[in-house]
Amino acid sequence: MKKKKVVVALGHKALGATLPEQQSAVRHAAKAIADLVEADCQVVISHSNAPQVGMIHTAMNEFGKQHPGYTFAPMSVCSAMSQGYIGYDLQNAIREELLNRGISCPVATILTQVVVNPYDDSFYKPVKIIGRVMTREEADAEEEKGNYVVKTEGGYRRIVSAPKPEDIVEIEAIRTLSDAGQVVIACGGGGIPVLRQGNRLKGASAVIEKDLASGRLAELLDADMLLLLTGEKKLYLNYGKENSQPLDTLSVEKARTYIAEGQFQEGSILPKVVAAVSFVSGKPGRVTVIADLDDAKAAMEEKAGTIIR
Amino acid sequence: MKKKKVVVALGHKALGATLPEQQSAVRHAAKAIADLVEADCQVVISHSNAPQVGMIHTAMNEFGKQHPGYTFAPMSVCSAMSQGYIGYDLQNAIREELLNRGISCPVATILTQVVVNPYDDSFYKPVKIIGRVMTREEADAEEEKGNYVVKTEGGYRRIVSAPKPEDIVEIEAIRTLSDAGQVVIACGGGGIPVLRQGNRLKGASAVIEKDLASGRLAELLDADMLLLLTGEKKLYLNYGKENSQPLDTLSVEKARTYIAEGQFQEGSILPKVVAAVSFVSGKPGRVTVIADLDDAKAAMEEKAGTIIR
Repeated sequence: MKKKKVVVALGHKALGATLPEQQSAVRHAAKAIADLVEADCQVVISHSNAPQVGMIHTAMNEFGKQHPGYTFAPMSVCSAMSQGYIGYDLQNAIREELLNRGISCPVATILTQVVVNPYDDSFYKPVKIIGRVMTREEADAEEEKGNYVVKTEGGYRRIVSAPKPEDIVEIEAIRTLSDAGQVVIACGGGGIPVLRQGNRLKGASAVIEKDLASGRLAELLDADMLLLLTGEKKLYLNYGKENSQPLDTLSVEKARTYIAEGQFQEGSILPKVVAAVSFVSGKPGRVTVIADLDDAKAAMEEKAGTIIR
Repeated sequence: MKKKKVVVALGHKALGATLPEQQSAVRHAAKAIADLVEADCQVVISHSNAPQVGMIHTAMNEFGKQHPGYTFAPMSVCSAMSQGYIGYDLQNAIREELLNRGISCPVATILTQVVVNPYDDSFYKPVKIIGRVMTREEADAEEEKGNYVVKTEGGYRRIVSAPKPEDIVEIEAIRTLSDAGQVVIACGGGGIPVLRQGNRLKGASAVIEKDLASGRLAELLDADMLLLLTGEKKLYLNYGKENSQPLDTLSVEKARTYIAEGQFQEGSILPKVVAAVSFVSGKPGRVTVIADLDDAKAAMEEKAGTIIR
């Protein structure tokens, strides 16, 4: 029987923020992934990177300030570093969990670039707050460099665009490894955002929503299922309100209606539902499940979470 | 005809030190790699990371000091980050150069861990100086944490071991991609050094010589050639002295004699010759060439550099 091909997106719950948190969180996440491998799924994993890339971005730019000859590390470079850092811990935890269960299956991380469109509307409307809190003077300096800055409760912070993922540069490598039965980690942090300039790829000062990148990955791999694992059991209507209502299933049509109603929070739930709609509507038979990390296997069997088809 | 399988090790000349240097250097290195791909070789690339991992290690540890809740990033984590950073620039430059020549060949970076032996003699004799210059107080603090410190001209610096590479954890992924005709970047910076603890891999506070890791990679892939590209045309006897003498060819026997005589500098030339001897003596027909980056194609054809068989 053909294996079920599942693209799994891991979020903050699976990774934590600091180094010790990540080491502990990935061990927990590895159990969810191992459950899927044990159930004979062909698994490709993507993941978020917000606190990690923030940590790296701050560290590298402080370094750049203090060391003559060194320049600031742009977001794209920090994103590449975060893929190395998270991939290392995550692939190790999965490898160990699989071996503990007597499963000898290679696990590897592919450094992934995701192409975005320079004319993406999002470049005119940055939404992703990144990096550390800055003083007014630092904020002014950032704006002079052409970067966007926003005033938050704690102080000034940089804000970057979240353009849509168009293409995944390393898709061939990901497909080759996955088709060879290996567990692949790819599109970390939504992928390193790059712009096409002829044959050249140029890093973009942006952050790609990892759920959208995961959806694109699932489309390009022609996966059977997109499994978006979070810290919530299901999608909710009227989330956080008295009349909140969990959704067991959701049709593409209803999802579009709820999106139009503004039911889902930008930057967290909305990209999940948008990715689900795009993936599921692309081809008959495709399913997206949004579920809690701890329910990964049941969600894969469509017995937990919110099932979108 | 079977393609010639070549493991190419890139050094400092191919990467530079700072961000702008690296961006420029990898474009140059990409021409050497594209020459090999164009000549129909199956190419797997490894590379050094000394200035890059030094930069990251310093930046991350300064960050750790200044941000409560964050811990120091160990060498293994910094090595993983450096693989992401260097792989990103390198794979892009190679991809672009190949496309400029009309060659459409996937290029991907595999995050690579290399297993070392906890009983490796090197752990008792650290040789690799890393990170920034420290004050006496900082040096004392490092020693209290169990790290080795050495006094250099500029001040105190950390010094770590350079254990031998025993196994490459992600070898299956590297082999699968390479056998599928893709260009693979692996074992960056000699690989992330890890120790086996049952099914777990634990990061080691060490740096693996990238030439030794490249040799191990070539052995495990059963490559035809190990191509060690440097900034020098050839190997020399009495290097830097009046009676210095370039070597066109070198037998394994002679190489062993010269090693015993102390002809080759530790930490730079010696690991190249040790890797060459190990790879070439492993199986008849294998060749190692040590050559200048700019002579990559001629070296692959055994018309430049020092040929070791």
